[in-house]
Amino acid sequence: MNERLARQIAFLVEADKLKSIIRRTSLVDLSRRENSAEHSWHLVLVIMVMREYGPPNVDWMRVMEMVAVHDLVEIDAGDVSAYNVDALKVVREQAAADRIFALLPADQHVRFRHLWDEFEAHATPEARFANAVDRLQPLLQNAHAAGGSWRDQALVRAQILDRMAPIESSLPDVWPHVLDVVESFCVAGVLRRD
Amino acid sequence: MNERLARQIAFLVEADKLKSIIRRTSLVDLSRRENSAEHSWHLVLVIMVMREYGPPNVDWMRVMEMVAVHDLVEIDAGDVSAYNVDALKVVREQAAADRIFALLPADQHVRFRHLWDEFEAHATPEARFANAVDRLQPLLQNAHAAGGSWRDQALVRAQILDRMAPIESSLPDVWPHVLDVVESFCVAGVLRRD
Repeated sequence: MNERLARQIAFLVEADKLKSIIRRTSLVDLSRRENSAEHSWHLVLVIMVMREYGPPNVDWMRVMEMVAVHDLVEIDAGDVSAYNVDALKVVREQAAADRIFALLPADQHVRFRHLWDEFEAHATPEARFANAVDRLQPLLQNAHAAGGSWRDQALVRAQILDRMAPIESSLPDVWPHVLDVVESFCVAGVLRRD
Repeated sequence: MNERLARQIAFLVEADKLKSIIRRTSLVDLSRRENSAEHSWHLVLVIMVMREYGPPNVDWMRVMEMVAVHDLVEIDAGDVSAYNVDALKVVREQAAADRIFALLPADQHVRFRHLWDEFEAHATPEARFANAVDRLQPLLQNAHAAGGSWRDQALVRAQILDRMAPIESSLPDVWPHVLDVVESFCVAGVLRRD
């Protein structure tokens, strides 16, 4: 086997480990918490269904590619609750990106690393939409799972809305539904108003 | 919430159930069998890494979309071993496709159903490549998991090669590696030669 194919396979085999990274979010049936690989698949599907709410002239292929790779760093750095980020998270994830994407042949290393850097920088319409669906999917899942991962984190309404803000700018027509969901969980006592 | 958004969310919430459909293939570390949602994500990644081995002028976005939806019918129809298909599989999966894609608004229902029909028909270069990576990913996983799901199915070499044939036509430069893997598991006694 030539070295190029060997490196590509080594990367794909390493990626399998993302299936063992457990997130805070539960499945809708509350049977277990979801992992970052199946979460990433769900984001691809959200993009396919929800892209009509995004801005014009978006490169949707790049959005799909970004969500497919966005969590790979968690293989080394782990999943951290969005509401409990520590100062070293960025350092750990950069080191993980350095190692994991370097498994690929040089040209693909550059391409995949650029996708991840773009996702993290939130600077392009593609990255902002990808980040927005990364917020929307767990919200939909929690909304249909009696609050799901919100239940055990003692969260305040403003924390959720701050976290969900990318949805307001990238999928503005979906934002009223986000507000409705958050309000309903305040009424239910799952989220505190302040 | 308007009816269109409600239908889109209902579909995305229903799709969460794919995370509970368990396949034959194990994770590389053999800790558990993988589910069809994380498998679908892995296929997206295989496409991103391996598309250079495919034919020219392929619509890669459609290949990605096809693998993202290809297993959704298993929510109703279940996962069936590729080496143990019964006569009613097609009937069950058609009924599942009828129900699940109809959760979407009418235009998206048509679009998603077409993607699934195209995948199943193997008639376009896009569908053939998508089917080829659907074969290649479990092979790579088994190859790095001491035979994985091949170990307990008493399989013969010709069954595997027949199943893997789409790789030969859609990713011809990867085919020699497939032959090497199968040969090595014959030598190891995991697969029978005939």
